[in-house]
Amino acid sequence: MTGRVSRIPGVDDDGHGMISDTSGTTATEGELLETAMRRALDLAARGPVTGGNPQVGCVLLDPDGRVVAEGWHHGAGTPHAEVEALTAARAAGVDPRGLTAVVTLEPCNHTGRTGPCSVALLEAGVARVAYAVEDPGAVSGHGADRLRAGGVEVVPHVLAAEAEEFLHLWLTAVRRGRPWVTVKWAQSLDGRAAAADGTSQWITGAAARQRVHEERAASDAILTGTGTVLADDPSLTARGEGGELAPHQPIPVVVGERAIPVDAALRRHPAGLIETGTRDLDAVLGDLNDRGLRRVYVEAGPALVSALIAGGHADAFSVYVAPMLLGGLDPSRLSIGELGVGTIAEARRLELDAVERLGDDLHLLLHPRAECPRPSGSED
Amino acid sequence: MTGRVSRIPGVDDDGHGMISDTSGTTATEGELLETAMRRALDLAARGPVTGGNPQVGCVLLDPDGRVVAEGWHHGAGTPHAEVEALTAARAAGVDPRGLTAVVTLEPCNHTGRTGPCSVALLEAGVARVAYAVEDPGAVSGHGADRLRAGGVEVVPHVLAAEAEEFLHLWLTAVRRGRPWVTVKWAQSLDGRAAAADGTSQWITGAAARQRVHEERAASDAILTGTGTVLADDPSLTARGEGGELAPHQPIPVVVGERAIPVDAALRRHPAGLIETGTRDLDAVLGDLNDRGLRRVYVEAGPALVSALIAGGHADAFSVYVAPMLLGGLDPSRLSIGELGVGTIAEARRLELDAVERLGDDLHLLLHPRAECPRPSGSED
Repeated sequence: MTGRVSRIPGVDDDGHGMISDTSGTTATEGELLETAMRRALDLAARGPVTGGNPQVGCVLLDPDGRVVAEGWHHGAGTPHAEVEALTAARAAGVDPRGLTAVVTLEPCNHTGRTGPCSVALLEAGVARVAYAVEDPGAVSGHGADRLRAGGVEVVPHVLAAEAEEFLHLWLTAVRRGRPWVTVKWAQSLDGRAAAADGTSQWITGAAARQRVHEERAASDAILTGTGTVLADDPSLTARGEGGELAPHQPIPVVVGERAIPVDAALRRHPAGLIETGTRDLDAVLGDLNDRGLRRVYVEAGPALVSALIAGGHADAFSVYVAPMLLGGLDPSRLSIGELGVGTIAEARRLELDAVERLGDDLHLLLHPRAECPRPSGSED
Repeated sequence: MTGRVSRIPGVDDDGHGMISDTSGTTATEGELLETAMRRALDLAARGPVTGGNPQVGCVLLDPDGRVVAEGWHHGAGTPHAEVEALTAARAAGVDPRGLTAVVTLEPCNHTGRTGPCSVALLEAGVARVAYAVEDPGAVSGHGADRLRAGGVEVVPHVLAAEAEEFLHLWLTAVRRGRPWVTVKWAQSLDGRAAAADGTSQWITGAAARQRVHEERAASDAILTGTGTVLADDPSLTARGEGGELAPHQPIPVVVGERAIPVDAALRRHPAGLIETGTRDLDAVLGDLNDRGLRRVYVEAGPALVSALIAGGHADAFSVYVAPMLLGGLDPSRLSIGELGVGTIAEARRLELDAVERLGDDLHLLLHPRAECPRPSGSED
């Protein structure tokens, strides 16, 4: 890589807007596109994490490789990144004809609240489109195909791995038609969610509880059960350290057939409330997908948590472990209940992605191991 | 501290053996003793961690502050550190009369397999003795008192805090007349020691299991229960990565009233076997103390582990957490059973001393919080 390090935002040593390396050697075409894609990914990250739409960034390059305009998606109901970049170019007096659009996600081909980006790029006369990841929601055909048919050169898969990782939750949710489910729980070191008498406030400390608020704020929905609502009457809002409401509030979703009291705190939740009226988890998650809710954060009792894990619905785990022992032989006080694991070989093996000390507590982030047996496999 | 940094082993820029700082300024008397004590602590650490005797180091200084001899205790049955240093001085042709002895632990005053060090120092004619920590086992009077009575100047508490930390396990055990007890267990993230059918091999991976062997090798005894012996027939030897026996083997101690089979693997343990024939933990630990066993490592089933914790016998916890979920509602599969905790305020709160990733697993080291309620307190 020595001597081939390209820079962003593309201002070389002579002060020009061309993306070039610092040694004075001109970057190759592929390097130019990768450098521009890195910039597009940085722009994408400025958009909201939550919401039904993905975070997308776009950079427009002139034929000499200079960045002439940038854009990113600011959330549902606002222009897509490509359209924002084209608008920025025109506002700067740049004619988009003949430009290269570098965009983190394949331009869409469907008409929603905005028109198809493929058409916008075609009509603007861009000569080339590079993208990182294919549009997993291309139900109306692929934007790349329409662009090629219109005579635009298409360069797919530029920095595909980086973009896949960046959009992993959204891509997974859209590709399989079910939200990304992060299951959270707090427990004592010995795996209890409560003491013998049911008391559990507070197993974890202030720093851990604040992190939970941050995880809520990065979610589209919070899944809980009627049992938790009836027992604890939680508010499930995302709040800052001063108790103030976070700008984004995930919508609470209650699983179960029992009615929720008319005076439940959840009925005053700023994002509204979804009462599913069912314990059918496939139906619940399908409904959330249809509503464009991609990131579901589970804060529920052991029964619902265990059912989600046993059913293979958990994509990630956020576990808070308090350095305390509670002991006790009452199974209802355990953080995790029945998972259908009969023998050690059937254990739900996880990968530990991160471990962090939060105050006195430990915070673990994990995901299921690929070879983790599914219920159908373990029941054979 | 600038300009006052003394060095060890006391060779100054001119090649002399005097302990002085690097700026050419002579260190104060107190600094000279602290520097020599640091050296004595380094020497002490060369001795064996295990065994009934403490790790002790000794440095002899001439009237100009030069280190003229060193010694440390190599284990029960060998000379104490002071005697080794005096022997080294004489072997080097140095007359011990008028020297200063700097020793990490107050010289002993009792006659065991070796004579009292206080007498040896008096007979050698040393002028001054500095020590860090008082001898907690001074049942025959304090060595410091005998030295003072013999006209020797005594400087106590030099680097006392460092020496207390260094000898913490041994000092705690000797002062209260009960061994230091480290309770170890391995569990799934959700606190199970086994799956529903009782299988548990292997919850943790090779790196964690090797660490257990290292913890065994640093212990004087391994405490287990008849239940574990009858169910698993463990060998409880300390082995290296190649399976070879470690140089030091802790002696296995079996708690419980049931008989151990004549062909049990434990009967072939290289360190022997202690069958207690009782479940009285106070009696067992008192007996181990009388045998000079200071560091007890507990590898037992949930019943014995929980009884030790509930009884307030656990000084430290070594917990291996495997990134897996086992679930299940059978209380006998839990890593920790009944602790007598009725409500969250009675939780056995711990301090997390260290967390480390060992292969796929987590290894946690913890100790009880000072305010942790004892059973008598929680039953009030």
